[in-house]
Amino acid sequence: MDKERQASLSRIIHYTFSDSTLMIMAITHRSYSAQHNERLEFLGDSVLSFLIAEELYKRFPRLDEGDLSRLRAQLVKESSLSGIATSIGLGDFIRLGEGELKSAGWRRPSILADTFEAIIGAIYFDGGIEPTHQFILRFFEKQLNEIDPKLIQKDPKTLLQELLQSKKSDLPIYTVVSIEGEAHSQTFTIECIIKKSNIKTQGIGNSRRIAEQEAASKAYQLMLETI
Amino acid sequence: MDKERQASLSRIIHYTFSDSTLMIMAITHRSYSAQHNERLEFLGDSVLSFLIAEELYKRFPRLDEGDLSRLRAQLVKESSLSGIATSIGLGDFIRLGEGELKSAGWRRPSILADTFEAIIGAIYFDGGIEPTHQFILRFFEKQLNEIDPKLIQKDPKTLLQELLQSKKSDLPIYTVVSIEGEAHSQTFTIECIIKKSNIKTQGIGNSRRIAEQEAASKAYQLMLETI
Repeated sequence: MDKERQASLSRIIHYTFSDSTLMIMAITHRSYSAQHNERLEFLGDSVLSFLIAEELYKRFPRLDEGDLSRLRAQLVKESSLSGIATSIGLGDFIRLGEGELKSAGWRRPSILADTFEAIIGAIYFDGGIEPTHQFILRFFEKQLNEIDPKLIQKDPKTLLQELLQSKKSDLPIYTVVSIEGEAHSQTFTIECIIKKSNIKTQGIGNSRRIAEQEAASKAYQLMLETI
Repeated sequence: MDKERQASLSRIIHYTFSDSTLMIMAITHRSYSAQHNERLEFLGDSVLSFLIAEELYKRFPRLDEGDLSRLRAQLVKESSLSGIATSIGLGDFIRLGEGELKSAGWRRPSILADTFEAIIGAIYFDGGIEPTHQFILRFFEKQLNEIDPKLIQKDPKTLLQELLQSKKSDLPIYTVVSIEGEAHSQTFTIECIIKKSNIKTQGIGNSRRIAEQEAASKAYQLMLETI
């Protein structure tokens, strides 16, 4: 890979490596050479997950861990990463074996996403956490800014509570009907009662929380049907 | 939580918080208070995964990403984390609601592991990456030192190659017998031939690599039977 191409790659990723062999390894697919990018991809995947988790944690102090996990999964999924890789033209730089070249491997989402992760791993190994953080902010800033925590799918208990509050109705009461089974594999049956609306539903699950959510979901559907 | 108990907890985790409310939140189960530790657990889980990935990446430069992933999964699995939590007596400090207290929740592996992760998240939020790294090295040093990369399960192609080399035999030859199906869901049939031993096996898979491994695995079994 000549110096000119190395310089263009540095430009599109906005990072200049101290050790350019790391950059070259990051864009090398296993079909091209034994010095390929899969270990860097492993490292990059974990740095990326961590830095996105931290951003979400700090930006959305009121979201619970379930919403944070879902948001992170959306941001780091293959189609998101390959989309970013495509937008900066990373495909032109990936070093592929003959077979992969013939089948247009540089356009395959999995290869694009993996290479993007390998570049993150290489930047981390080359420059440490700060430049990696800057890199990730640069490429995820738009997606991070577009997140509207209000639009995140709420769980049924929350939805039901908000609906009842908006109607100035009493809040639902959840009661345990039964707990069956051994300590390690219990089945909970929970009843959700909304007196004023004459609603009584049941949910079953392996935890109290799951059973409550199921009961709440049924009650919420009934409420919507009777409005 | 009085100052004395806070001091004992700091002692067992070898970390003193600047912001002690973070420490208290980290040991608070959702059954005890709305200010519980699940968000910190989300953060801690991702910092832990990342720091363990980095340690493995640096310590084992010859392991491939599959082995690195398996090793990491072993180190951060629930039973490993709850084991560490138990060994330092973390259970005594967890703040649980009445129901969880009655059912001895402080002994439950999931609660112990989650609280341990929440403490990692709290240390990261309180002190940044360096003290978190120190914390993780302290508690995982023994497990990290005990890893013997030679004992990690090798893939069938490697096993077969090493066996043949030890017998000064020719190396196996892998040939594509057929590739069927559309570009996105191809089925590869690969033949593995070891002339000298009169062995010919076939493997089938959705990638060349998988098919080769299957063929190698069968050949390896045959080799072992004929020795």
